[in-house]
Formats: sequence, structure tokens, C-alpha cells
Amino acid sequence: MKNRKKVEVCFTPNLYDLHAEDAEIVVVIDVLRATTAMCAAFDNGVAKMIPVATLEEAFEYKKKGFIVAAERGGEIVEGFDIGNSPASYMGNKFEGDTIVITTTNGTKAIHTARNAATVVIGSFTNLDALSEWLIEQNKNVLLLGSGWKSKFCLEDTMCAGAFVENLQKSGKFRCEDDSSVAAKFMYIQAKDNYLSYLKASSHRVRLAALDLNEDIKYCLTPNTSSVIPILKGQLFS
Amino acid sequence: MKNRKKVEVCFTPNLYDLHAEDAEIVVVIDVLRATTAMCAAFDNGVAKMIPVATLEEAFEYKKKGFIVAAERGGEIVEGFDIGNSPASYMGNKFEGDTIVITTTNGTKAIHTARNAATVVIGSFTNLDALSEWLIEQNKNVLLLGSGWKSKFCLEDTMCAGAFVENLQKSGKFRCEDDSSVAAKFMYIQAKDNYLSYLKASSHRVRLAALDLNEDIKYCLTPNTSSVIPILKGQLFS
Repeated sequence: MKNRKKVEVCFTPNLYDLHAEDAEIVVVIDVLRATTAMCAAFDNGVAKMIPVATLEEAFEYKKKGFIVAAERGGEIVEGFDIGNSPASYMGNKFEGDTIVITTTNGTKAIHTARNAATVVIGSFTNLDALSEWLIEQNKNVLLLGSGWKSKFCLEDTMCAGAFVENLQKSGKFRCEDDSSVAAKFMYIQAKDNYLSYLKASSHRVRLAALDLNEDIKYCLTPNTSSVIPILKGQLFS
Repeated sequence: MKNRKKVEVCFTPNLYDLHAEDAEIVVVIDVLRATTAMCAAFDNGVAKMIPVATLEEAFEYKKKGFIVAAERGGEIVEGFDIGNSPASYMGNKFEGDTIVITTTNGTKAIHTARNAATVVIGSFTNLDALSEWLIEQNKNVLLLGSGWKSKFCLEDTMCAGAFVENLQKSGKFRCEDDSSVAAKFMYIQAKDNYLSYLKASSHRVRLAALDLNEDIKYCLTPNTSSVIPILKGQLFS
């Protein structure tokens, strides 16, 4: 099994440089809710998404007439069209459109990984579809959690652990770092009941305060989507 | 329970600034093996320990006639007296002495935390003794894992999780960050059989290759020590 590719987990963008060296594909994960929303957008016919790291850039796009999704601290930023709820895209509301998106954590993580050979969007919703695609690529995979304001977060780590488990099951991947082992352990421990496990998640508590329980359930339900959003230049399609 | 103090876990020195703000006491943890060795040293009559971050500083002390413990990559650095094995101190071998110590990860973490109001040394060996002391202090506690070359490591995180559990059981501490919750989960999952759980630990694999299984067992056995090494100026006593 000498030729197995490496799968590794990086908990937060702040640790990216320590993990990025051998990475050929970076999967950016922000379960609650940016990357789940991006998968929902493509599922609902959105043509392209342009991730931007700052509100300044988002305002520039807004001025040019783009539809802009902007979230900070779980809420839609004043003056923008939508935030980071997957529900915003349901019913093919933005079919064929290009959406600009900036969020507290997710787009920061995308920005951190932007120079990797390939950057793709992962979530529980496209877990199996993206896992299959990653196995086909036969390249080293780094799963990058977006965290919460640069700190480790439970839900992104568990989702990364779900990808680790899928990739290892294929027999084509090895997993060496303790961060990957821990992510897989956490996922296996939690897989039968994410919601209960995540009661303790600080981010879930923040979102619960915003009355987003339906959103949270959607974000934690695996395999409702089969999209593989890939970064090409400045945008995902 | 409004007046409960905060207990938080920081996985590696690289994330220290994100967690340090409210910390009043920082517990530095390097289970395999620096902080376990430091506890063993004090248990065996060592009077003082001077942690230094670099080999250059260690050489300077060596020239001045100090006994110097220097480890890199799990092995004693050539030209030094001892490495980071707790076994070096057994049988009161260095009773009354001052030992200078530099290690791959542990002393780097101590260096990172050096400006905190109080810095203490934690390990599985002084788990209950240090927990009791921390509960008595009634201050915010940050548990800092040393990691492996700045990356997350399982054994330090589990040890941090053991402290979180002890402190929370007292009823006097709250735990908010996902990193603390995850550390506690990992500890609870592993507590009945560390050695089996840590089979997957990358660091354990590294040490096993160096034939250090006796050392590892010692490092993972809780409550063989009651020392509380506290940093005063440049040295622990």
C-alpha cells in the first residue's frame, strides 16, 4: 500500500501552513453554514459563486450590480441581499445567477487555501458525492475546517472526520496526523446523532440563539446533494 | 453559577494568542515526555529547572557547568547529559540539583506562555494533585498542549481533557470553547485504555520506534506524583 495518497485534517486556517505542504486538493469545510449554503446554491441552479474575504470587496461587487451574500456573526450584513443560510437558495431562486459571497469563517478559509492546486467545497450535504470524486482523483487531500474566528470548531472537524473515514475505507488513502485521527474518532463517536453531540458546540449555541434550528438540521443531514463546487481562478462553478 | 471561572484548551502553541486573553493560569502539557519528565525530576529531589527554547541557550548553560537535558526528535542531543526521559531522574539521581532543559515541543510551549501571570507544569502523573491546586486558585485556567512540531497531538489533548473533566466536576469551572469540549470527549472516550487509544497517535509511533514503551507507560499512568512545578522568573521550582 506504498502508493496510497495522504488524507489530512487541518482544524483551522491559522494552522494551514503546517499542513499544506503535500496537499494537492484542499477541501474547505464550513458546515454552519457557508459551504453547506454553497452546495445548496449550486443544487438550486446557481451558475457561479465568487467568494471574497472582506466586506469591502463585497460592497464593490454590490455596487457593480451583483447579488451578494454577506454574513458576519451569523446574521445578514445590513445592505446585502442574503446571508449564509442554505434556505436562501431553495426553489431555484437564483437559477443561472452569479452570487458573490463573504462569511465570517468560510470565505476566510477559502482565501487561505486559494493557492492550492485544487480547491473544492465540502459539507455533510455532499459528503458521499465529494468523497467518491476525491477517491477518483488519486491525489493527496487536505480537509480544511473553517473554525470559528480561527479557533477549532466541532462541526467542521466532525465533517472532516466523515471524509477521512470515507477515503480510508476506499483503501487508497493513508492517514498519519493526529488531527486526522482525532477528527475520525469524533465523527465515529457522533455519527448516529450529530444533533445531540453538537449540543455542546459553541457555534450551535450561537446559531440556536438566532433561531436557526431548521438550518442546522439541514446542514447536518448528509448526502442530500451531489455537487462538487471547484474553484477556477476567482470563482466556483 | 455566574462566578464560575473559565477552563479552556489550546491545542498547540501556534494558537496560543487566540486563547490567552482571559487566561490567568497556563498549564503547559507535553505528556510524551517533557512535562512528565519535569514532574519526575521534582519528585526525585531536583531543586530547580530552567527551561530554554533553543539548543544555543542550552549550550551556553552547559559551558557554565550546568546539568543540561536536551532532546530533539525523541533523542538526547549529542554532547548533553540527558534527554527528556522521566527515567533519567529516578532514584533521586539529581537531588538538590538545578537542571536546564530544552525539548522539541515542551519547552517551546513554556516559552510561548512565559508572560502569563502563572505558568505551571501538567501531565497525567500530577493530574489530580494539580487539578486540586487549580480548583483552589479560583482563576481562569488555560491548558496548553505542546503538540508535535506545532501540530495538534492526541496525548496532550487527552491529558488536557482530563484536567477539564476534573475542573468541571468541582462545579467551579465553565467550559465554552469547542476545543475544550472536544478534549474532554476524547479523554472520556479513551480514559479506560489510553494505550490502546493512542495506538493511532503519531507521536507514540515515533517513540515506539525508539523502544521507549516503558517510558510511554509511565507517562500515561495518572497520579503517581503530587508536585506542582510553578514558573518563577526564569525557572521552575
